[in-house]
Amino acid sequence: MTSLWRHPRWLRNEHRWALGVALLDILERLGAAGDPAGSLVLAMAESLASFSDDPSALTCSYLTAAHRATADRIQDWMLAAGFQSHIDAVGNVVGLLEGTGPAHGFLLSGSHYDTVVNAGKFDGRLGIIVPIVAATRLRRAGVRLPVGLQVIAFAEEEGVRFESTFLGSRALTGQFDSKVLDRTDVAGVSMRAAMAAAGLDWTAIASAAVTPDSVLGFVEIHIEQGPVLLDENLPVGVVTSIAGSIRNTVTVTGMAGHSGTVPMGKRRDAAAAAAEIILAVEQRCSRYPGLVGTVGQLVVPGGAMNVIPGSCHFSVDVRAPTDLVRDAAMEDILAVSREVAARRKVDIEWKEVLRVSSVECAPQIRTQLADSVCRVLDVPAARRLPSGAGHDAMVMANITPMGMLFVRCGNGGVSHHPSETLSEEDADTAVRVFEDFLLHFGEAHVAGK
Amino acid sequence: MTSLWRHPRWLRNEHRWALGVALLDILERLGAAGDPAGSLVLAMAESLASFSDDPSALTCSYLTAAHRATADRIQDWMLAAGFQSHIDAVGNVVGLLEGTGPAHGFLLSGSHYDTVVNAGKFDGRLGIIVPIVAATRLRRAGVRLPVGLQVIAFAEEEGVRFESTFLGSRALTGQFDSKVLDRTDVAGVSMRAAMAAAGLDWTAIASAAVTPDSVLGFVEIHIEQGPVLLDENLPVGVVTSIAGSIRNTVTVTGMAGHSGTVPMGKRRDAAAAAAEIILAVEQRCSRYPGLVGTVGQLVVPGGAMNVIPGSCHFSVDVRAPTDLVRDAAMEDILAVSREVAARRKVDIEWKEVLRVSSVECAPQIRTQLADSVCRVLDVPAARRLPSGAGHDAMVMANITPMGMLFVRCGNGGVSHHPSETLSEEDADTAVRVFEDFLLHFGEAHVAGK
Repeated sequence: MTSLWRHPRWLRNEHRWALGVALLDILERLGAAGDPAGSLVLAMAESLASFSDDPSALTCSYLTAAHRATADRIQDWMLAAGFQSHIDAVGNVVGLLEGTGPAHGFLLSGSHYDTVVNAGKFDGRLGIIVPIVAATRLRRAGVRLPVGLQVIAFAEEEGVRFESTFLGSRALTGQFDSKVLDRTDVAGVSMRAAMAAAGLDWTAIASAAVTPDSVLGFVEIHIEQGPVLLDENLPVGVVTSIAGSIRNTVTVTGMAGHSGTVPMGKRRDAAAAAAEIILAVEQRCSRYPGLVGTVGQLVVPGGAMNVIPGSCHFSVDVRAPTDLVRDAAMEDILAVSREVAARRKVDIEWKEVLRVSSVECAPQIRTQLADSVCRVLDVPAARRLPSGAGHDAMVMANITPMGMLFVRCGNGGVSHHPSETLSEEDADTAVRVFEDFLLHFGEAHVAGK
Repeated sequence: MTSLWRHPRWLRNEHRWALGVALLDILERLGAAGDPAGSLVLAMAESLASFSDDPSALTCSYLTAAHRATADRIQDWMLAAGFQSHIDAVGNVVGLLEGTGPAHGFLLSGSHYDTVVNAGKFDGRLGIIVPIVAATRLRRAGVRLPVGLQVIAFAEEEGVRFESTFLGSRALTGQFDSKVLDRTDVAGVSMRAAMAAAGLDWTAIASAAVTPDSVLGFVEIHIEQGPVLLDENLPVGVVTSIAGSIRNTVTVTGMAGHSGTVPMGKRRDAAAAAAEIILAVEQRCSRYPGLVGTVGQLVVPGGAMNVIPGSCHFSVDVRAPTDLVRDAAMEDILAVSREVAARRKVDIEWKEVLRVSSVECAPQIRTQLADSVCRVLDVPAARRLPSGAGHDAMVMANITPMGMLFVRCGNGGVSHHPSETLSEEDADTAVRVFEDFLLHFGEAHVAGK
């Protein structure tokens, strides 16, 4: 199959396509080469990063020209690697490698190819590139997997353009909410119009859904986006669960006043009240492993140096591996807020804007991933860790057993930023772990039938 | 003398001028009436508030059409009240009432007629209106003061349009810095160009300076802009000193990160560090009467709900009646900042943007004001209180003994806001105290010669 949305204008940048062809050459020679998997993964990520909405930074938002060029590049690789491929009605790039054994169904693996604004090169993309490289290496080595493999490059996960997340995995799992088609981007373009302009048929989104009983499981490989593996000097870890989160926006309303003329004891300072809550969030969320709380947005609107803040806005994001831990923390934070409001005579209004339940990774996938890590690294146990960030795997868990492999994030664990890094060695380890997983997953399924 | 800048287009609003004439009528009848001084003060403030840069709020910025119309209205009143009047090269409206006695020189009294954005009606203007009304009442009652009185309506104190404060009092005291003439407003208009457009001769600003040895003292009557007198149920108070202030802008630089993936113990959260300093400012400045500290500006630039703040900007304004108290507080706050920076591994950069020394009010003026308060209110002592806000009186103190009378601010002490209020009774008290002061000040000076 070919892309539904190939368009001549995307070919204008000749040297970019030359880079694409060079990567295909490398893929062709993979079987003969020593072990260039790590450098290949990095080169492929670099290649995808050449398509951006912003010439000075990597930003790849849903259905922009850069986004569609990224999809085509991924599809080129899939086709070159022997996959069948199509781009579905929501823009997911799907690559299909039939199994040779008698087992029915497919293992799914993938991640998203859209990015945040001013992104790193590996968030999302690593989970697309690694399965392509691993499957290609196995194929070049003459290995035919007993179960089929579908690699999914999800079109949208970050929610940047239309403030609606997980569009790709929701479509693939039949959970796409058609109401979001009416959402508009900052330029006023509706999602429906953007899809039509990209040659996507929004009326066919339901057809993008996979048949759940054809899916044997889903594995997402993802850069950790945090410092845990880095600090413990480990290349990879097996995710135990994906954190549930609650997000609130908070408005404190006190009383503005002249900074020189209102004595301290008579103030109703909205920023000072906010400061107490910021520290309470930090302290409360430091009391349990995996629990995190963040005040990411904070502003005194129209603040002036000589005016006591009459109002202050901030956000509170609380996450934990289990909802019970998260909810207990939220309750304590709200109790502090009530106490602060009463003591300082300010009004504090909390508005919940997001509540997502935590999702456990499937025990059988976790065990198989851990076994692969132990075999590849020759270690007695694999590091287990929760994911604090949301991933397409959360959505996939609704239809199939789900697991995730985290790969060490360099540079202090920075992600969602151009300084996100991944080492060649760790990329190589990720490919080898996934190869091992593919081999054993297929065998287990054939044996289990 | 007549205005240097009368312009036919300012006459277009006929009903405003009609209101002006009505007030002149009231002034004419003042001697015969019972005691309408309070209601007259309020009506005059209302009249000035009808000139605004913004039709929906009171904003009177330096040399706008509204500002010049305000000056003309004030001059009309001065002329009607028997003052000689001119508008000087910086836009100050000066009214002069010669003394009858042998004493040489003048008492000066006044305040500013420009306002902040979205201002109250009494800040500044009260200190112009009260001396006009008081002097007029004395004159209508046949009292001729032995020393002369100059009432000054300062053209600019707030610094809104050109971010340069005290233009009027600096010119009057010969401290005008000609460098500020090059400053531009948000529309790119230089102060020099704005002056030329208003018919002011910026080359003559030096001529606006008074001869210091002709000045016997300066008294500024001002709304308190705080809740002290309100809370103690007192109509007026005598200012002891005007607070010195230090203003800093502070930038905390930590490390951004994903809100879900960086464990609490590994964070370098700029907003949490800022929160500690905000509370430290509040706590430290609550330890001494008259000392105040304010974080008025606060923002996590580009903050997102799911990103740990990598930076945070805020302002710190610390004031105290004496510089020693203020400086000791600043030192302790900076020590906390260093401790927070070291413990949290963040960088905290302080940039001092303003340092103004505190100014003591002259003992002889304070005593005379207190005596007048006691006589008028029939109380044994006058409330003494410091001014946390800066006033033209600070600048005037460089050339002459200075004192200030604060008048109770209603509505919780709110100022720099449309909800600033002043009661008719308190306005009346202010007029009567200043009348009493004028009578005794003149006698004391004649006696002292």
